[in-house]
Amino acid sequence: MASSFGQLFRITTWGESHGGGVGVIVDGCPPRLKLSEADIQPDLDRRRPGQSKIVTPRKESDTVQIMSGISMTGKTLGTPICLWVKNEDARSEAYSEMKDKFRPSHADYTYFAKYGIRAWQGGGRASARETVGRVAAGAIAKKILREKFGVEILAYVKQVQKIIGEVNPDAVKLSEIEANIVRCPDAAAAGRMIRLIEKIRNEGNTVGGIVEGVARGVPAGWGEPVFDKLEADLAKAMLSLPACKGFESGSGFGGILLTGREHNDAFRAKSGKVFTTTNRSGGIQGGISNGETIFFRTAFKPVATVMHEQATVTEQFKNTTLKGRGRHDPCVLPRAVPMVEAMTALVLVDHALRQKAQCG
Amino acid sequence: MASSFGQLFRITTWGESHGGGVGVIVDGCPPRLKLSEADIQPDLDRRRPGQSKIVTPRKESDTVQIMSGISMTGKTLGTPICLWVKNEDARSEAYSEMKDKFRPSHADYTYFAKYGIRAWQGGGRASARETVGRVAAGAIAKKILREKFGVEILAYVKQVQKIIGEVNPDAVKLSEIEANIVRCPDAAAAGRMIRLIEKIRNEGNTVGGIVEGVARGVPAGWGEPVFDKLEADLAKAMLSLPACKGFESGSGFGGILLTGREHNDAFRAKSGKVFTTTNRSGGIQGGISNGETIFFRTAFKPVATVMHEQATVTEQFKNTTLKGRGRHDPCVLPRAVPMVEAMTALVLVDHALRQKAQCG
Amino acid sequence: MASSFGQLFRITTWGESHGGGVGVIVDGCPPRLKLSEADIQPDLDRRRPGQSKIVTPRKESDTVQIMSGISMTGKTLGTPICLWVKNEDARSEAYSEMKDKFRPSHADYTYFAKYGIRAWQGGGRASARETVGRVAAGAIAKKILREKFGVEILAYVKQVQKIIGEVNPDAVKLSEIEANIVRCPDAAAAGRMIRLIEKIRNEGNTVGGIVEGVARGVPAGWGEPVFDKLEADLAKAMLSLPACKGFESGSGFGGILLTGREHNDAFRAKSGKVFTTTNRSGGIQGGISNGETIFFRTAFKPVATVMHEQATVTEQFKNTTLKGRGRHDPCVLPRAVPMVEAMTALVLVDHALRQKAQCG
Amino acid sequence: MASSFGQLFRITTWGESHGGGVGVIVDGCPPRLKLSEADIQPDLDRRRPGQSKIVTPRKESDTVQIMSGISMTGKTLGTPICLWVKNEDARSEAYSEMKDKFRPSHADYTYFAKYGIRAWQGGGRASARETVGRVAAGAIAKKILREKFGVEILAYVKQVQKIIGEVNPDAVKLSEIEANIVRCPDAAAAGRMIRLIEKIRNEGNTVGGIVEGVARGVPAGWGEPVFDKLEADLAKAMLSLPACKGFESGSGFGGILLTGREHNDAFRAKSGKVFTTTNRSGGIQGGISNGETIFFRTAFKPVATVMHEQATVTEQFKNTTLKGRGRHDPCVLPRAVPMVEAMTALVLVDHALRQKAQCG
Repeated sequence: MASSFGQLFRITTWGESHGGGVGVIVDGCPPRLKLSEADIQPDLDRRRPGQSKIVTPRKESDTVQIMSGISMTGKTLGTPICLWVKNEDARSEAYSEMKDKFRPSHADYTYFAKYGIRAWQGGGRASARETVGRVAAGAIAKKILREKFGVEILAYVKQVQKIIGEVNPDAVKLSEIEANIVRCPDAAAAGRMIRLIEKIRNEGNTVGGIVEGVARGVPAGWGEPVFDKLEADLAKAMLSLPACKGFESGSGFGGILLTGREHNDAFRAKSGKVFTTTNRSGGIQGGISNGETIFFRTAFKPVATVMHEQATVTEQFKNTTLKGRGRHDPCVLPRAVPMVEAMTALVLVDHALRQKAQCG
Repeated sequence: MASSFGQLFRITTWGESHGGGVGVIVDGCPPRLKLSEADIQPDLDRRRPGQSKIVTPRKESDTVQIMSGISMTGKTLGTPICLWVKNEDARSEAYSEMKDKFRPSHADYTYFAKYGIRAWQGGGRASARETVGRVAAGAIAKKILREKFGVEILAYVKQVQKIIGEVNPDAVKLSEIEANIVRCPDAAAAGRMIRLIEKIRNEGNTVGGIVEGVARGVPAGWGEPVFDKLEADLAKAMLSLPACKGFESGSGFGGILLTGREHNDAFRAKSGKVFTTTNRSGGIQGGISNGETIFFRTAFKPVATVMHEQATVTEQFKNTTLKGRGRHDPCVLPRAVPMVEAMTALVLVDHALRQKAQCG
Repeated sequence: MASSFGQLFRITTWGESHGGGVGVIVDGCPPRLKLSEADIQPDLDRRRPGQSKIVTPRKESDTVQIMSGISMTGKTLGTPICLWVKNEDARSEAYSEMKDKFRPSHADYTYFAKYGIRAWQGGGRASARETVGRVAAGAIAKKILREKFGVEILAYVKQVQKIIGEVNPDAVKLSEIEANIVRCPDAAAAGRMIRLIEKIRNEGNTVGGIVEGVARGVPAGWGEPVFDKLEADLAKAMLSLPACKGFESGSGFGGILLTGREHNDAFRAKSGKVFTTTNRSGGIQGGISNGETIFFRTAFKPVATVMHEQATVTEQFKNTTLKGRGRHDPCVLPRAVPMVEAMTALVLVDHALRQKAQCG
Repeated sequence: MASSFGQLFRITTWGESHGGGVGVIVDGCPPRLKLSEADIQPDLDRRRPGQSKIVTPRKESDTVQIMSGISMTGKTLGTPICLWVKNEDARSEAYSEMKDKFRPSHADYTYFAKYGIRAWQGGGRASARETVGRVAAGAIAKKILREKFGVEILAYVKQVQKIIGEVNPDAVKLSEIEANIVRCPDAAAAGRMIRLIEKIRNEGNTVGGIVEGVARGVPAGWGEPVFDKLEADLAKAMLSLPACKGFESGSGFGGILLTGREHNDAFRAKSGKVFTTTNRSGGIQGGISNGETIFFRTAFKPVATVMHEQATVTEQFKNTTLKGRGRHDPCVLPRAVPMVEAMTALVLVDHALRQKAQCG
């Protein structure tokens, strides 16, 4: 149950950071969609370790294999699509100290408290490696949204610690995002972000920041009125990502400084179409899309693994210390960008199908 | 589907702001729990319109009736509990202008875009009146958490526009929250907040702010590792509340200004118990509770209905203007407090039962 | 959870045989469907006690009220529809002996074993009174199927004990079913059935039989390939009805006497349409409709309440005897007919929407 | 969605008869259960083609690999368990004629009608090969039921065409079932069944029959009162198996020949325990287990693939004929036995966890 997401376009992920691999089942995909590994691999490459000097040097090719659900002619059959990525560069020895000690601000202790057992190598299921399945499934969702609904999904790094990029959600392009290794489309800010991350890594420390997500072209009417509001499902999707600690949609936390008169988005009509003159609602009103650009921000905390001695406890509940070792990200943000895109796409494609079912 | 929440302790709400009433079905409640209307009414009274000078003067007694699921001896039977609250003070005439015009930053337009039809009186299902069912069901959830698991749930107003209250999540008491009509336990800040809200209301304007939610006594091990992380389910729960635009857990958006070394919560052990010396994780690590106080913040935008002329469009997509009328809240925060508590309790009781099922 | 049925067109029933009433929430109903109590009441009248001399004389008008989900213009809003039927003729005193004794072959003991508590008056939630909500919701489902998809749902009594009616599932009409009080369209058999039921009732005994369900006009392509096969969902729907002990689709149990060569349905094509020359598949192949008439049979055991002393035990697990009292059905079949229709319609409308979502 | 089964112990199967393999994700498994391939392989061997002279000679070793969810010490982690079986002996050429023609009484036409595309080799997802995942997951469910709840699950062939075995559900042993290749514990009947199947196979024909399922040691109180009755979930589970056309629980269809007085199971108490003197209820009353042996019968139609020319249509809807080729089962029953056991175990373990969650 806990490993499935979505009502109609439903994914189920499996796999630990060490072991046979990681994967995902995509159930409910519309039939007759052209689909091959080439549609999926690019997003996995954007998520992959070792892709640049500011992410973990761990070497995983993360090559996806489609195991089921595709016809001999390369089209979706409508039946479950199984995607599998083999684990390659898993060095359990780097984690041997973790066998007996809980890493601070990681999930080691809570998994142990929950299950009475844990996969201590690489964090097991709590590892960001689990997101391979999400990104792979998200690539399919993005393709459907693009081809069948004209919806474009993007995400980018908006802020690293105190460095903020200036980006226009209505106009930003994928090529601008991919123009630098930190995935911030504001080139000047990106340069400063990269230098900060390198400095922080050299100090054996880590840093967090904000990823902004954008969906353009979503027609008015997607989303559900009460519990499954579009914002609610996006919030859940984002907070389900490792290290994510916050979500805000449209004006978000900043919007509370305005009064209602200042905050409201005026409706206007032109050529039989309705639009708003501002977009503090972030494209969603009452949980349902209004046709404007959907945008939101997600906060990712600094990575918990630092190369310094830290106070912690053993599995026997004795006080001890632990120093991070192995190959880790000094900052998750560049690799979080495709994850945010994937989760956004999974939420939207599900609501697209739900809208078709009830009101189509 | 869209009107149900929870996997094992599942609620389904129904009803519009105008019509026969609003209600909720609670399915999956443990049997043999003493339960009467007296357990539920107090939270409805905290949510009720007309309770103070800073909320809408609309008059609804919001008297709850238990329609099913209780034995003659006043105990839960384990079968669905139906709770019903009659609508009393619905004045459709106050909304007649809304029949043809969409209120800015409300859900009028998006409902129409979605369904091709809408209940224009009082916003129908998008009205905050829908939360009656949540608060009623949440009162049952709170009772179970308190009596069976020793968990205490609280929420309070943390911020109104720029006025911030100083509150300690580990120590705050219900009596301090209920000590003033704005429900901010910092008495000095509360006074300023109340004055601000009165001033804003006199200007025909509205204002937003932050509600902080707290859960104390949650044992380590609740929550699920991947999609149904405790933070993810709380985020969804909060963003599903009307006017909520943001959620952050523990250090939240502020945490990104710290480095990993500064941000991590050190584990310590004492008398065979594990605790953390700081709580930037907000009581949740890897989506699972760690035994510390759970706390989070939710942003509520300023109420969209203002008593001023605003640009908007008609149902025929013609430009027009609309001026708010009727009886509205200048600030939702005091009434949002029991809603945040209710949604917190619904998330936690569901995860408590899920933990019992799989690992108990 | 246990009280909800359906994925997209989802109903949730509530209420006990004694208490405030019984009801149902219908969530996911398409918007803009003309709907009033007059669409629902006729099926409730067919289910109602006291409708004829061969059913229980208990007096319930079973008048349905729509509590939510309908616009002022009498159309569905797309939001949850709450239907409520008040309990009227509940005489708890007739059940006083049941307070301490478990009725044989009823659910008294199993509810007590499960919950440690039970609503002993009238069987509480295990009473067939719960099906009021199903029949009411089913009337909406039937209307959608009829108006939007051209699908007709019928059920009728096929067999009472050893008396078997001859009925053609492809041709039978509602008027033939409603032509007599036992709801068997074979008039000659119906006469014998009625006489048998009267005789059995006079003996203080009860009798069971078979209801056959039919769906005509279902297009090829509804149903899911693996777990949610149309037959599987119909089987679950039927076995969830009180007193139902068996389900068979198409050739069913009788089909095992044939060889594969004899059993197979040959495909033929005519004017660009595919059909089968026989219909042993009962309109479903591989769990998916093939365009032929769907038909199936459901076995209802003899009613457990008989007016004779029977061996049983007390709530304190002492041996005792119990003699049925009160007003009971000598045979559930005439009243089971609208229940079978309702459950059939609920399964089909759900799959219609699912098909629209994924493949439409 | 359609490929998942269960609420708390949830399985998701994937894979076609031709392609990379077939598999299953088991989510919600309790942690710390000793588990290896050796716990699963024996049931797969019972389901495997080529196991005897009366089943298809297709050669598949069906060797299961555990891909995730197990600790280095061989225990379940509580996270999803992925089980994978490679396809080995897939000869697409044997199916080339099926590329353009629909096999009668198979799912070829309905899949095409549903999805507009189909995996014509081996029936794709409609192939009984999909049940590999169910049997593998069911082996885990059986182990949990046996070790944690003392529940024993068995199934056996009760009838092949007109040959009926005499078996006592309360006493039958696994060794008696496995004593012959047709899996009928009545040795004399088994001999006649085997001879019939061989004769039928030599005629290029096929035959069906009945598998009876048994669960012993289920405590009173499992199952849900309304839609998720134990019988309802078992019925769905069975009808979701390929070729299954009927389900009956306890007295089933035969029970309708009795009156209520004859049919009722009298309760008796002895040493503080309640039991029934007969078991026409089949261990389930009101959808909830009563502590007696659960038993039910499932009808499997004769296999649709026969080695004779049959009338059918092409994918272009032209009349044609088709003669079965390739390697097929003359009778599915011996291989259906482990499938029935698996589905029974999956239903029961799910209800065991649900009972623990709500009432435990």
